[in-house]
Amino acid sequence: MNNAPIADDPVRARILDAAVEQLRRYGGAKTNVVDIARAMGTSHTTLYRHFRSKAEIFDAVVEQAMRDEAAMASAFVEADGPAAERLEAMVLALQTRKRERLAGDPEIYALYRRIMEERPEIIAAYGRAMTGLVERILDDGVQRGEFRIDDVATAAGVVRDAVTVFVHPVHVEAAMRAGLPIEDMARAVVRTLVKAFAA
Amino acid sequence: MNNAPIADDPVRARILDAAVEQLRRYGGAKTNVVDIARAMGTSHTTLYRHFRSKAEIFDAVVEQAMRDEAAMASAFVEADGPAAERLEAMVLALQTRKRERLAGDPEIYALYRRIMEERPEIIAAYGRAMTGLVERILDDGVQRGEFRIDDVATAAGVVRDAVTVFVHPVHVEAAMRAGLPIEDMARAVVRTLVKAFAA
Repeated sequence: MNNAPIADDPVRARILDAAVEQLRRYGGAKTNVVDIARAMGTSHTTLYRHFRSKAEIFDAVVEQAMRDEAAMASAFVEADGPAAERLEAMVLALQTRKRERLAGDPEIYALYRRIMEERPEIIAAYGRAMTGLVERILDDGVQRGEFRIDDVATAAGVVRDAVTVFVHPVHVEAAMRAGLPIEDMARAVVRTLVKAFAA
Repeated sequence: MNNAPIADDPVRARILDAAVEQLRRYGGAKTNVVDIARAMGTSHTTLYRHFRSKAEIFDAVVEQAMRDEAAMASAFVEADGPAAERLEAMVLALQTRKRERLAGDPEIYALYRRIMEERPEIIAAYGRAMTGLVERILDDGVQRGEFRIDDVATAAGVVRDAVTVFVHPVHVEAAMRAGLPIEDMARAVVRTLVKAFAA
């Protein structure tokens, strides 16, 4: 995922902040471009210079949230310590982020869920970014002599697929409603995978 | 899950057959109790002796489909041969069943998807049944000296969670649309888990 468009353009960043504010207050259905512009003290024509539609703003809000998640996950790639521990901590941190968002930011969560259904290419880009981070941790584990993995790219895909159920909005929401101990469940899966990777 | 109500009651079974037929032709929104009764050459009052509502009929259709899946999966528990191979074959068979249903039975698939969202207790019962089957295969692997697993119940939960992404309607549909090689992906995950379980 590309950070450039937002970092380079403070107006764009301000539009997204205002959109998130409106989304939190009124939800996706009741938020429109005119309201976002009004909240910023500007006109909707200014907004349309940066985004072609409300849908494009919403996509950008979700992409921004995904970039934030990827940035958080990157910290575990860069950190010191055993790869196995960092992998587990990364998965649990991503899950915690989803749970916090569901509990504390339900409108953004609902938008997130909807866009995951409607914009598979955004999700695919997110998936590639996250799988890349997992691959770097696994690679590091191999370098450290912790893991013995023939095909690190395939192994990273295995991790991605096996933990999807713990970080995917649909499942996190269902699991929270059912009162499942998803943190323990996620930990058990990661530890099983790590056992398979162990040198 | 309990097979008794359907096996014991041929009228109930005929109602479900007729409902599936109507669902396939007209979809869930356009199918109603009167149409199902008419297709059976009976009255809707007869149907209401067996089901209280259209929603209850639809739930029963999905429960029947889930029982069929559990019955298919049971065959791999009862079969001879290495537990690792049977586990892999079971997961792939469940995935193939979902793919066939999506391609050949889209209206039933849509119903399935909707009920998975709306009736978590049906899904929980299905999950317990399938996890029980996985547990029996793992147990068998331990007996055969193939696996060394401290806590078979936890390990069965790990398998269930790690392969959910390959058999859950939401993901199977998204993966098919994206043209992902989900059979290879599922196989890679099961083989990684089996490696962790290996004695």
